[in-house]
Amino acid sequence: MTFRASIITLYPEMFPGPLGMSLAGNALERGDCSIETCHLREFGTGKHRNVDDTPAGGGAGMVLKPDVLANAIDSVSGAADNRPRLLMSPRGKPLTQTMVREFSQGEGLVIVCGRFEGVDERVIGARNLTEISIGDYILSGGEPAALVLLDAVIRLLPGVMGNDQSGTHESFENGLLEHPHYTRPQIWEEREIPPVLTSGNHGAIEKWQREQSERLTAERRPDLAEKIPGSDPRAREIIPALPVTNLGQGVDFYRERLGFECIYRDEGGYAVMRWQAVELHLWLANDESWRERQKGVPVQSGAESFIAGTHSCRIMVSGVEALWEKYRNTDMIHPKGHLEKKPWGSTEFAILDPWGNLITFHEWL
Amino acid sequence: MTFRASIITLYPEMFPGPLGMSLAGNALERGDCSIETCHLREFGTGKHRNVDDTPAGGGAGMVLKPDVLANAIDSVSGAADNRPRLLMSPRGKPLTQTMVREFSQGEGLVIVCGRFEGVDERVIGARNLTEISIGDYILSGGEPAALVLLDAVIRLLPGVMGNDQSGTHESFENGLLEHPHYTRPQIWEEREIPPVLTSGNHGAIEKWQREQSERLTAERRPDLAEKIPGSDPRAREIIPALPVTNLGQGVDFYRERLGFECIYRDEGGYAVMRWQAVELHLWLANDESWRERQKGVPVQSGAESFIAGTHSCRIMVSGVEALWEKYRNTDMIHPKGHLEKKPWGSTEFAILDPWGNLITFHEWL
Repeated sequence: MTFRASIITLYPEMFPGPLGMSLAGNALERGDCSIETCHLREFGTGKHRNVDDTPAGGGAGMVLKPDVLANAIDSVSGAADNRPRLLMSPRGKPLTQTMVREFSQGEGLVIVCGRFEGVDERVIGARNLTEISIGDYILSGGEPAALVLLDAVIRLLPGVMGNDQSGTHESFENGLLEHPHYTRPQIWEEREIPPVLTSGNHGAIEKWQREQSERLTAERRPDLAEKIPGSDPRAREIIPALPVTNLGQGVDFYRERLGFECIYRDEGGYAVMRWQAVELHLWLANDESWRERQKGVPVQSGAESFIAGTHSCRIMVSGVEALWEKYRNTDMIHPKGHLEKKPWGSTEFAILDPWGNLITFHEWL
Repeated sequence: MTFRASIITLYPEMFPGPLGMSLAGNALERGDCSIETCHLREFGTGKHRNVDDTPAGGGAGMVLKPDVLANAIDSVSGAADNRPRLLMSPRGKPLTQTMVREFSQGEGLVIVCGRFEGVDERVIGARNLTEISIGDYILSGGEPAALVLLDAVIRLLPGVMGNDQSGTHESFENGLLEHPHYTRPQIWEEREIPPVLTSGNHGAIEKWQREQSERLTAERRPDLAEKIPGSDPRAREIIPALPVTNLGQGVDFYRERLGFECIYRDEGGYAVMRWQAVELHLWLANDESWRERQKGVPVQSGAESFIAGTHSCRIMVSGVEALWEKYRNTDMIHPKGHLEKKPWGSTEFAILDPWGNLITFHEWL
């Protein structure tokens, strides 16, 4: 089966471009894949074959017309076409190596290259386009993005890479960035290859490479490091669970006074509250445990015998001053918790909930 | 001043490629920027002008030789060259629109396109290369990435875009994804342009566009949504602060028993502990407040009079079973906290610290 890419573009002459050389060039020559372009201009309307028009609501730039783009798509991809239809767009889902691998196992792709300010939103729904972004930056159009996506996909097609191993032993395939590489000479500009690599001890080499991969990933891409699969336990998120003696009042307080949303609440007296990136839980501390506590009985048996009103946590925010302006004249403010720049570099203020749980809002400036 | 890009590559014929057309093509033609290529092969050694060699330590693929690459770099960029030197690499710092804008305000760029398994690590340090990644996927080489980077940079050079507004009113420039666009016809395939956009009410249109941008960003890119600048306060992270009556013992417990690192500790009795993505704080609850509490005195004055041993929090992990195996035979395990799959879908177990602070480790499976 040949992998077939159909590209809808105003610049068909940009293809195959760099894909005509190197790995992809060889694959195209052998017929492992094919790239056909569909010139959007041919579907333009009027004497000047217009493809765009001014945006509804005003503003800069032009928008690709829905009818023109839909006609172009229909000309290369009918209802029976199973290939995914992509729209290269900075608003799209970020491209990952996992997606690249999935695309490489399919029949091909239909790729719409956006230009100007964007495309009419209605085509995206009507023609079932998936918006894909190759990264958080803006290009002159979708064409360079399509070239990158196809380069990544084509190299994974069967038979394209000489050494099959090269496809699985590299950055992202195991969730890690690749370890450093070295080659001869042993010493170059007074810099030596790490001795372990020339030791001949394969176990030690593998261990070193794995450690270097993990170190690089942790240093450069903490976002990836958090997602590394494997059996080593990894910490992802911490959530304070605050005790209250009346769950309804607790939910109301955090919702109405602090802007949290209640995303879960059960009969047993537990509630999950969320404010953007922050989650906190509320649990019902019963009166019995509260009384026990007041008698001075040591508490060592877990949440069910904890008492309310003794918790503290810190919420890191942006806009701490605006938050302070909003809350400063309320009865929630802790008597010693007025907005202050602290010696350790954060600006913070503190509130108490009705049970005395202390919450400090802080921002690093 | 002309923006000058020097590209070191084994495929000089890939340039300018798509950059020879459209916006970038016009900029090159006008002389707003220039692209020169440096053919790495010319610096190869031996009869076959070899540029690569087998990796130290073994493994698949080939590695670009340090001497060859350094000679090529030196030929286009001497010590007095102020241009950033980039190495396109999936291990690099992810390219952002902010970096693109910075590059566009400089004198130009020196770009090394990697090929094969990678380049000898020593050149990166010796020639001060900054590794840049255009996204989390693997290309056949650095050339398509260099084309994308240059396309993004060139369109921001002065005079390149017809309408200057287009450069600032788009995805990422304000931290948000762009709102949907529409153009004529008013009704297409029974789909109508949202009425607000044709209302002529500019305030309402701007509000709608901002709301749509925020909605799309929150839906598709929660990672970006968390970084949106502006005066609206945003919650980023929550950190529980657990009381202990002996800070040294507390730090030791969380470090030695649970694998946290102590990243800050002050004289006043406060410690910051970190385990990967999770931060928790320890603070010294003094005996006085502990005694007060036991007398049943209401606590409403904040952290300094809280008591130890009454906190609970949850740590979301991956690998909860491996963690359970590690801890199950220790005295930390909560009597009722053995590993269990809970009705709400997580698998969890709980421990108590020496002060009775309860920590539940949970994983969504």
